[in-house]
Amino acid sequence: MTLPNHFELLATDGTARAGRLTTPHGVVRTPAFMPVGTAGAMKGLYWREVRDAGADIVLGNTYHLMLRPGAERIAALGGLQRFTGWNGPMLTDSGGFQVMSLSELRKISENAVTFRSHIDGAMVELSPERSIEVQRLLGSDIAMQMDECVRLPAVRSDIERAMQLSLRWGERSRRAFETAPSGSMLFGIVQGGDVGELRKVSARGVVDTGFHGYAIGGLAVGEPQAVMLAMIEEVVPHLPADRPRYLMGVGTPEDLLEAIRRGIDMFDCVMPTRNGRHGLAFTRRGPVNLRNARHADDPRPLDEESAWPSTQSISRAYLHHLVKSGETLGAMLLSEINIAYYQRLMGDIRDAISRGTFDEFHELTRSEWARGDIAPR
Amino acid sequence: MTLPNHFELLATDGTARAGRLTTPHGVVRTPAFMPVGTAGAMKGLYWREVRDAGADIVLGNTYHLMLRPGAERIAALGGLQRFTGWNGPMLTDSGGFQVMSLSELRKISENAVTFRSHIDGAMVELSPERSIEVQRLLGSDIAMQMDECVRLPAVRSDIERAMQLSLRWGERSRRAFETAPSGSMLFGIVQGGDVGELRKVSARGVVDTGFHGYAIGGLAVGEPQAVMLAMIEEVVPHLPADRPRYLMGVGTPEDLLEAIRRGIDMFDCVMPTRNGRHGLAFTRRGPVNLRNARHADDPRPLDEESAWPSTQSISRAYLHHLVKSGETLGAMLLSEINIAYYQRLMGDIRDAISRGTFDEFHELTRSEWARGDIAPR
Repeated sequence: MTLPNHFELLATDGTARAGRLTTPHGVVRTPAFMPVGTAGAMKGLYWREVRDAGADIVLGNTYHLMLRPGAERIAALGGLQRFTGWNGPMLTDSGGFQVMSLSELRKISENAVTFRSHIDGAMVELSPERSIEVQRLLGSDIAMQMDECVRLPAVRSDIERAMQLSLRWGERSRRAFETAPSGSMLFGIVQGGDVGELRKVSARGVVDTGFHGYAIGGLAVGEPQAVMLAMIEEVVPHLPADRPRYLMGVGTPEDLLEAIRRGIDMFDCVMPTRNGRHGLAFTRRGPVNLRNARHADDPRPLDEESAWPSTQSISRAYLHHLVKSGETLGAMLLSEINIAYYQRLMGDIRDAISRGTFDEFHELTRSEWARGDIAPR
Repeated sequence: MTLPNHFELLATDGTARAGRLTTPHGVVRTPAFMPVGTAGAMKGLYWREVRDAGADIVLGNTYHLMLRPGAERIAALGGLQRFTGWNGPMLTDSGGFQVMSLSELRKISENAVTFRSHIDGAMVELSPERSIEVQRLLGSDIAMQMDECVRLPAVRSDIERAMQLSLRWGERSRRAFETAPSGSMLFGIVQGGDVGELRKVSARGVVDTGFHGYAIGGLAVGEPQAVMLAMIEEVVPHLPADRPRYLMGVGTPEDLLEAIRRGIDMFDCVMPTRNGRHGLAFTRRGPVNLRNARHADDPRPLDEESAWPSTQSISRAYLHHLVKSGETLGAMLLSEINIAYYQRLMGDIRDAISRGTFDEFHELTRSEWARGDIAPR
């Protein structure tokens, strides 16, 4: 049985697409960048800032939330939106990726992954069925199937084994999702590492299973950008045009621009907040490292032409001082500035696609990044 | 020559006073609590939140700012207000207290203190004259004389020596301040530890020198609250009634209430932000430790009757989760909640003094604190 479609394609420009995805907690304009609120909080930002910056949807990490404060507890408190105060759409991952990257003593079997909690040392089992149950308890608008993601480089046999397991787990996830509340969605995940042939097999298999939307997983895990883009080009033709496409865990502004050009609709990444905490600002003219001493006496803001108040008004000298001093305010301001930059970029891209001017926008944006930061004073 | 007076006494109620202090960057309603923005930033808060919470004035630490980013640099960038974006009154301490508490290899002489910077290891000399120069470069609205503060308990001879040195440094500070911009102020500091007799000698000496306002230093440094209050009672009768009185580095909400009752007009303390970072909320019904497991499943806010949005709406369960998870948002919210509580308390106190109902307010407030937090669910 085909799952209902909540995605509406509004415009295409070449392979790039603009659309809208309707979730129980509101509409998501695509292409969409989802800031990552790992453990029920966006590091360094108030939720109202995330909204003000232009984000329609955020991502929560099932792995973190199931361990603390616990899925059953969040359910009893009314679900993630009520618990956190973020009153918009929320996508949750399956938890599988973080089990692999964060927990020790993990053991993977056909049935499930078993791992030791990094919080209290307890042994926890996560199966595709339990992952769906947890995501449902969290009150997720978009749940992800459980999959196995392989770090690259990897040998083909490992990639293929994980890809096939992910297909079977996708089927189990879909069955487990059958009783989910109406309007909520489940996305399948295409795996296959950096092997084009396996990506095709996976895409066909995932589409055969049938989901509300389709994600490409297992990229941005160590491979060059060119490989990532090539894999997107392998997969996209096999995905149904009327369903949303989500590239997981990506990426830099350039990654986003190039992936959208190749037909991707959704992204998530910790980069804007994590890099912000480390003193890096994303700007119209490329990344700016505020730790650099060249900013110490510079009264100019990051970008005089920005519409975002902090980007347009706060001096580089002050940001430099905050970063060098390890002041929380530095992390707060740069996280906010970066989330706002990402959201502005997505908004501009959506406009360009709608107007049929994506190629010009793509070229102009890349040339501004290439100019680099303004000269020191 | 008597220094001009920028303080206006608006109401008294017993020994408690309400007034207004006019500075180059705006008016300060007293009693006033000054949040501490140590190194040019309020830890965990945007400046607009500090303002929204009701703070008229903040404190900046000369010691931190002179070492990083440097007083001359801040002057070149237009002064602290322009540098930080806090566009209101700012009081700066002399730097002496932090030299004693934070730096290693400090050496004190009649002329100056010499110390090793905790940032780059350089040897730095701070004299009363240099302290005034630094505070002027920072663009301070209210500068403090340099003094020597002795931790308690201490022997009388040490307390007396430091008190006498502080008197001489006060005279030098005042001379150095003579060419300061019109409208800016210099406060003298009464020392004398926990010895009432020395406090009296100090108060008379400081008043003889003559300042825009008078501070009581060297309290809240290890002595019981009763001793602190007794020392305030010793000093206040010797201070001119028409000048502002500032109790340095104090304190808990109870300290503030009791000190105001004894005639104090101004306070500063890191407690609301520091304790906020450690999971403690100040509320109408006393302090609440959000780390406590009793809050884990509690959907109720800290105080349903609070006018401050975060206090009134965010669940204890969420705050508990944020604190336990070490999320920045927890420190942000609790710092904001605490600054708002302190400012609300000061506003209520000002109103009560103006209405002549301070005694009733004092009793009611203490009885609400004594009730303690709401019962667990």
